[in-house]
Amino acid sequence: MKLAKPLPAYLVQRFHGWKATTFSENKAWYRRLADEGQRPRAMVISCCDSRVHVTAIFGADQGEFFIHRNIANLVPPYEPDGNQHGTSAAIEYAVTALKVAHIVIVGHSNCGGVKGCLDMCSGHAPELEEKTSFVGRWMDLLRPGYERIKDIEGETERARALEKQAILVSLDNLMTFPYVEEAVKSGKLSLHGLWNDIGDGGLEQFMPETGTFQAV
Amino acid sequence: MKLAKPLPAYLVQRFHGWKATTFSENKAWYRRLADEGQRPRAMVISCCDSRVHVTAIFGADQGEFFIHRNIANLVPPYEPDGNQHGTSAAIEYAVTALKVAHIVIVGHSNCGGVKGCLDMCSGHAPELEEKTSFVGRWMDLLRPGYERIKDIEGETERARALEKQAILVSLDNLMTFPYVEEAVKSGKLSLHGLWNDIGDGGLEQFMPETGTFQAV
Amino acid sequence: MKLAKPLPAYLVQRFHGWKATTFSENKAWYRRLADEGQRPRAMVISCCDSRVHVTAIFGADQGEFFIHRNIANLVPPYEPDGNQHGTSAAIEYAVTALKVAHIVIVGHSNCGGVKGCLDMCSGHAPELEEKTSFVGRWMDLLRPGYERIKDIEGETERARALEKQAILVSLDNLMTFPYVEEAVKSGKLSLHGLWNDIGDGGLEQFMPETGTFQAV
Amino acid sequence: MKLAKPLPAYLVQRFHGWKATTFSENKAWYRRLADEGQRPRAMVISCCDSRVHVTAIFGADQGEFFIHRNIANLVPPYEPDGNQHGTSAAIEYAVTALKVAHIVIVGHSNCGGVKGCLDMCSGHAPELEEKTSFVGRWMDLLRPGYERIKDIEGETERARALEKQAILVSLDNLMTFPYVEEAVKSGKLSLHGLWNDIGDGGLEQFMPETGTFQAV
Repeated sequence: MKLAKPLPAYLVQRFHGWKATTFSENKAWYRRLADEGQRPRAMVISCCDSRVHVTAIFGADQGEFFIHRNIANLVPPYEPDGNQHGTSAAIEYAVTALKVAHIVIVGHSNCGGVKGCLDMCSGHAPELEEKTSFVGRWMDLLRPGYERIKDIEGETERARALEKQAILVSLDNLMTFPYVEEAVKSGKLSLHGLWNDIGDGGLEQFMPETGTFQAV
Repeated sequence: MKLAKPLPAYLVQRFHGWKATTFSENKAWYRRLADEGQRPRAMVISCCDSRVHVTAIFGADQGEFFIHRNIANLVPPYEPDGNQHGTSAAIEYAVTALKVAHIVIVGHSNCGGVKGCLDMCSGHAPELEEKTSFVGRWMDLLRPGYERIKDIEGETERARALEKQAILVSLDNLMTFPYVEEAVKSGKLSLHGLWNDIGDGGLEQFMPETGTFQAV
Repeated sequence: MKLAKPLPAYLVQRFHGWKATTFSENKAWYRRLADEGQRPRAMVISCCDSRVHVTAIFGADQGEFFIHRNIANLVPPYEPDGNQHGTSAAIEYAVTALKVAHIVIVGHSNCGGVKGCLDMCSGHAPELEEKTSFVGRWMDLLRPGYERIKDIEGETERARALEKQAILVSLDNLMTFPYVEEAVKSGKLSLHGLWNDIGDGGLEQFMPETGTFQAV
Repeated sequence: MKLAKPLPAYLVQRFHGWKATTFSENKAWYRRLADEGQRPRAMVISCCDSRVHVTAIFGADQGEFFIHRNIANLVPPYEPDGNQHGTSAAIEYAVTALKVAHIVIVGHSNCGGVKGCLDMCSGHAPELEEKTSFVGRWMDLLRPGYERIKDIEGETERARALEKQAILVSLDNLMTFPYVEEAVKSGKLSLHGLWNDIGDGGLEQFMPETGTFQAV
């Protein structure tokens, strides 16, 4: 803490630019958001990856999306064991306190976390198998997905399939949260699974009828 | 999973708009980002709150920031116990794989998670004290901060002080990660603590010399 | 060389100030830039004029823009004749080695080079027509642009029109470089034409659909 | 030209931020700069490299430096052969029209152009020796410098030495311009040679008395 440093000057300058334009033009809205609290329509769970910002893709402004971002956009199963579960806390808050109407899982191409999982599960990344590897233990969540795609031919194809499994595993795990299940069943909440192709700007969504991802 | 639904039409429409404009104008950059991988300069840890999007505040485009968002922008201490730690996984990946040059903790005013912590610690939110409350257990991380501010007069003042403690506790906990400590000490990484006032668009940063937050 | 002098004290002082602040706050980033090499997103070609610094206008920090600056932001046509072509070398390096995603030509108002071209082409600057005039020979690149605007009424209007021609001629000449053409056609590179009004801080961009410059 | 695209949205946003802050706060100065013309004190010749922006290092604002940037900050010898010489045009304009009081050559560490020259001169980059290579032909300017350092042991040491030769060759070539020589001799112009270490933020200057570069 003693080691914290001042913000780099280029960010200070950009902040002042934002304040004098975007903030200034939307002052009334920011004031209301502060006074009345947020009321986001949707929760988005996406990857930390710097190449995928859902606010850009969906032109979403302040107040629209409650956004949780973690490695590989994963949702763990419901485990109320008294330990710290950051993702589960975000889901609990979004569903029970904010009562969002949608939870959107957004996966993407070229995902480093998914690539690590592929390497680990196929025995090529022993360092990720160590108990001390937070990334490895986090990606254990995707092991059930790996089992379903491990026989696919071609490394690229396997990685894409596992990226999509990360979305499906998360949708499955979401339903293990009792308040999610209840809200979905009573029609108060809907779940969505998306996969973004970074290089060609594509967006595919999971269609339950066919069990496949299709271009939006 | 069977319950997943198609994306709401307004988001489909916005996506197509983004693709025809922003994506199309930056096609070459997205292609390069996909082919060469990301190389973000900074990791940002901010809150899921829909009112605080750091990409907007800092005019940051795709590729600049690796962003982890959780309730109350908290970093847990280093605990390599073999359990799932999403925040720790994101930090490990940012520092050891991406080798980011900055980690910026961004807290904010009117934080619901911090408010919950205040209520819980002062005995006004028994539901958060239950073992099954993910939000409560997550906010336990901020208890050391509560101890330092509990005697401040005025509820608003106490909440603001605790919001800032969330940043300081996170900066402290960051330094318990051996690779963070090593990178900070060797000058390869710098840490920054920011607090954003939603209503008036202010930005304060923690200044270690004075031990206080000051307007940027 | 024997005649080189020590740096003026005011610049020495400013350098030490920069090192103690900006550099120190961004040490880790500079170290990474040195170790990993640059990966700029865009190349900017702008004028040497001391009144137009694109890093300021676009809040761009170290690492973002590969910048070539010459008199009147001109790009010569592709001429691989074995002679020295500094601008062409910069373009070749940016496109083939750095693989930038954008080339932005930035022209500006009150351009001395463009003014000289106007005088020369209208017969009022015989000294620029001499073989020994480097400025004159350099501004010959803009003669095709002069032909297109020479009948415009009003000296100021004519100068502004020629400043914009400098941008258009450069965009045209850029496309004569085979690797530029190839990258543009395959979607790996996009070209942009901007004109900055120094006095009122305006920025206009060339819009191909209308063939005109429009405020950004 | 028909292929020019609109400016990426993030740059549009940053421009508006700059206009509302930096420009707005300095409106009077920009107006004067536009009305009265520029009167820069110094010309700076530096590299296109995205990691070295002299305006940052020297805290230089609009109006201070007339800046020419090319690959490896090279100045060719005076050759008034009627061909296009962008660098020579910039020097001619700075010295004869703007009457700058200083010309500062700024070289730097990790220079890709200098590295290419080293490879080419030592026979390891045949592609740069081809007539069609603009980078290769441009780096021919540095061949005399290569001859002086080619026997230095260690690749890094050789590269650093050649980076400094790029500054010395440029200082030498500057003096072949009659108006530069005349202005230097009459005390109206002074020349300076600087080398910037990107990774550690160092700045060295050429000291003619010792014939070496020394920390500023």
